[in-house]
Amino acid sequence: MKIALAQLDYHIGNFEGNLAKMLDAIRSAKTQDADIICFGELATCGYPPRDFLEFDDFIHLAEESIQKLADAARGIAVVVGSPTRNPRLEGKDLHNSAYFLSEGKVLHVQHKALLPTYDIFDEYRYFEPATEFKVLEYKGKRIALSICEDLWNLGNKNPLYTIVPLDEMMDQKPDFILNVSASPFSSDHRDDRINVLKANAERYGIPLFYTNHVGAQTELIFDGGSMVVAPNGTILDEMPYFQECVRYYDLDEVFRGGREMLQPRDKMTLIHDALICGLKDYFRKLGLQKAILGLSGGIDSAVVAVLAAEALGKDNVRVILMPSQFSSDHSVLDARKLAENLGIQYDLIPIEKIYDSYIQTLEPHFWARDFNVTEENIQARIRGNLLMAFSNKFGHILLNTTNKSEMAVGYGTLYGDLCGGLSVIGDVYKTEVFELARYLNRHKEIIPENIITKPPSAELRPNQKDSDSLPEYHILDPLLYQYVEKHQSPQDLIEMGFDENLVRRVLRMVNINEFKRYQTAPVLRVSSKAFGSGRRMPIVGKYLA
Amino acid sequence: MKIALAQLDYHIGNFEGNLAKMLDAIRSAKTQDADIICFGELATCGYPPRDFLEFDDFIHLAEESIQKLADAARGIAVVVGSPTRNPRLEGKDLHNSAYFLSEGKVLHVQHKALLPTYDIFDEYRYFEPATEFKVLEYKGKRIALSICEDLWNLGNKNPLYTIVPLDEMMDQKPDFILNVSASPFSSDHRDDRINVLKANAERYGIPLFYTNHVGAQTELIFDGGSMVVAPNGTILDEMPYFQECVRYYDLDEVFRGGREMLQPRDKMTLIHDALICGLKDYFRKLGLQKAILGLSGGIDSAVVAVLAAEALGKDNVRVILMPSQFSSDHSVLDARKLAENLGIQYDLIPIEKIYDSYIQTLEPHFWARDFNVTEENIQARIRGNLLMAFSNKFGHILLNTTNKSEMAVGYGTLYGDLCGGLSVIGDVYKTEVFELARYLNRHKEIIPENIITKPPSAELRPNQKDSDSLPEYHILDPLLYQYVEKHQSPQDLIEMGFDENLVRRVLRMVNINEFKRYQTAPVLRVSSKAFGSGRRMPIVGKYLA
Repeated sequence: MKIALAQLDYHIGNFEGNLAKMLDAIRSAKTQDADIICFGELATCGYPPRDFLEFDDFIHLAEESIQKLADAARGIAVVVGSPTRNPRLEGKDLHNSAYFLSEGKVLHVQHKALLPTYDIFDEYRYFEPATEFKVLEYKGKRIALSICEDLWNLGNKNPLYTIVPLDEMMDQKPDFILNVSASPFSSDHRDDRINVLKANAERYGIPLFYTNHVGAQTELIFDGGSMVVAPNGTILDEMPYFQECVRYYDLDEVFRGGREMLQPRDKMTLIHDALICGLKDYFRKLGLQKAILGLSGGIDSAVVAVLAAEALGKDNVRVILMPSQFSSDHSVLDARKLAENLGIQYDLIPIEKIYDSYIQTLEPHFWARDFNVTEENIQARIRGNLLMAFSNKFGHILLNTTNKSEMAVGYGTLYGDLCGGLSVIGDVYKTEVFELARYLNRHKEIIPENIITKPPSAELRPNQKDSDSLPEYHILDPLLYQYVEKHQSPQDLIEMGFDENLVRRVLRMVNINEFKRYQTAPVLRVSSKAFGSGRRMPIVGKYLA
Repeated sequence: MKIALAQLDYHIGNFEGNLAKMLDAIRSAKTQDADIICFGELATCGYPPRDFLEFDDFIHLAEESIQKLADAARGIAVVVGSPTRNPRLEGKDLHNSAYFLSEGKVLHVQHKALLPTYDIFDEYRYFEPATEFKVLEYKGKRIALSICEDLWNLGNKNPLYTIVPLDEMMDQKPDFILNVSASPFSSDHRDDRINVLKANAERYGIPLFYTNHVGAQTELIFDGGSMVVAPNGTILDEMPYFQECVRYYDLDEVFRGGREMLQPRDKMTLIHDALICGLKDYFRKLGLQKAILGLSGGIDSAVVAVLAAEALGKDNVRVILMPSQFSSDHSVLDARKLAENLGIQYDLIPIEKIYDSYIQTLEPHFWARDFNVTEENIQARIRGNLLMAFSNKFGHILLNTTNKSEMAVGYGTLYGDLCGGLSVIGDVYKTEVFELARYLNRHKEIIPENIITKPPSAELRPNQKDSDSLPEYHILDPLLYQYVEKHQSPQDLIEMGFDENLVRRVLRMVNINEFKRYQTAPVLRVSSKAFGSGRRMPIVGKYLA
């Protein structure tokens, strides 16, 4: 028996596009004499469809896709994820299901039992969990269908769940397992998935075929890495990350086992590739080509410019250098050098004249008041306005260049440098931004060395440095990581050796700046706890604030 | 037996403040010889605490509050909601619980079984549902404790759930029911709660005491309306809406029943009072006093100015009139008249000079291109920048004045008129804004008549009217309501009589503008489906887009 795994890049709500892509793959698989082809979780409608699932019409379109896929499933069986209606009055209206389609018909449907409802996942908002677990028969083989998280309660050791879906199927003696998934990337999660898949195959002693999504849906990036696991737990194949791929496997060969074959997994490569994927898909899926950003001469915008040029092509990226009277000469020179290295269009637009017009206009109202953060923010917002004017006039999408450290402590101007349609490095700490810059320069110096080595500064007042108002990033970042990602208490952090005053100050900065993060662009997610839909905090709260 | 219901305004994460408020109420209740005092759901930590619940330290602080309340519960029993840890390895880490505290001890804990996970609710993200239901005994009475949603599956007729918590308790023969709730306001939900409470009391034939929260937590507004229901379903008392209140009830009298006593429930009064409550609490809980907004001469900013002056006091509201060369004379005059009627500080800041500096600066880059939405947006963003400059310089919080119709179709400038810390009328359709304006003028003309009667216009180009690019609001609003709130399909809408082209166009406008709503301020929620945390949509989606 020959099994095809199709690791595809779906698009939420684009039923026609997703269907066409799957029909293509089915046609190819038929020419290869595959017996079964597997697609991803909720592949008809894309993942995560969020509240579109509450629209009856949306579910109807998914049902139509299933019917068309069943029609195409002649001479080949198709395994695909799609929402199904819960026929019972009780419980949520839908199930998250895997369909087994053959000869124009739905041969079998298995619903998902373990519904992730944490971080970026909201599945219990929509879906009723499965209570029945049935193995299906096809061409003399008994097949266990499973959906993503259903693999993640091995031996009932995951405290979140009480059911082990595959355990429930084992007395029906399946020959192998097909799992359809939509498992998003995070750089610190990379080995868990492999270990869980190995452990599942070992526990049940049968082959496991795992098909993941690839591609980005706004902030969520699916990395692919679909896998085939031998009964002894050896990973016989792990598909490439961040690219579409269809591969074929002979079931007998998988039973026999063989050598382990894994993708390389270097952290900075993964983060880089994930961000490229996120950028590409954001533009492609919105039907857009061109990006714009402000190039300050600092490292954040430099890194975003290089990523954008790689993802979208240098002809599709335009940068604007917008010095004020507080900008240093080297900033403009460094920024220009970078733009030239990249071969991208750049324009120099000094903002002094506009800035002066604000100051003059406000003078009667601000009379005799000192220069303070107000005037700093005016500069940042003039830049935001200019960039948005280019965006509006020429159709470029503004990329936001804020890093995770700044996002965390609120070091950024709302409606100023926090503008943008997509935050590219908002889930990358400042210290990681430096690593990423080095990575981008690995073959040759694209980002001028001076951009990497000079002390970070917003240049919104004379001789300003980030370290005037923030702790050094090599101290700040680990503290933020422990609080934001690991949920450590002030007491824990002090016991870890962080200075007590610093802990109180930084945690307060994080918590009182929720209002800024509420209004910023979606952030490409590369860690297990990004700002955005996976982290839901009250604005008007008083905890540690 | 005397029972006190304390309908209080809690503050998320403000353990000290919430505790002090409850201790005060306990002291008063003791002087009134109350036997039991009831507070709200998760009253120790405030509702909804969201991901703060994932911080061990946060739960620890809630536990400390419970201990202090137990210490205070001497000579009186205290019923209060708080998170508890799930002692079992399996399932979510926490329960959403009601504590019964007496004589320094926890006499009983009942967990919540029905965990709302829809719209603005995410309870299954954090909580494990109850599986045990036990009645407690106190002073010779058997008491059924229940938590909010636990009342909402009467006769198992709510399709979301399969358990009826109070049914499970009835063989233990409780004498009465105490329910602790945190049930947010929406203007179209007003009778459901009363009907559910009546039906519960009738079904079980015993008294029901229901304690709700009052006050706002950012976008969510709790209206209070705590109730006492006689065994025959008569509402013997419904507490006032939108104000803190402690009242005492004699159990024997409740058994005897009496006349129904309900609060008046006129839609515009409710919406008005809810918005005032939302504004007040946003400022008070953030420790802020002053608001600023741009007064355009249009109806939206007029209504927000009147609401702000009422909520915060006229001395705490400042408005800026920022005409451009496209503003009509009557706009400035109307706006000034309104400011004078309100007695609030106003300043006139023409933006022409700043606008010209942008146009000149951009001239070399925009050379020979026509005036279009770019130049319109520049004006809106200059106003945003000026308002934020006042906000930064003087500490006023900028109020957003966008209405729900505009929010829906994306008729607004990101980082321009979409700026602001709080969206006051973002859940009020334009046609309702007119109703609200009439309501605000019910005693005398505060909003000049001309503001209400002139055709709506953004005044960003010569002779512009909203109706140039949008359908008339009396057609648009019902269409938006059916799509946004009722999830109707294009086909359904056409069958309802809406023009097919209009349906396609408007639904597309709603869906392609998700990116704008993602970056706008939290919206005070007065309907059952507001933009914000209760409506979660993909940005890069293609459904009806």
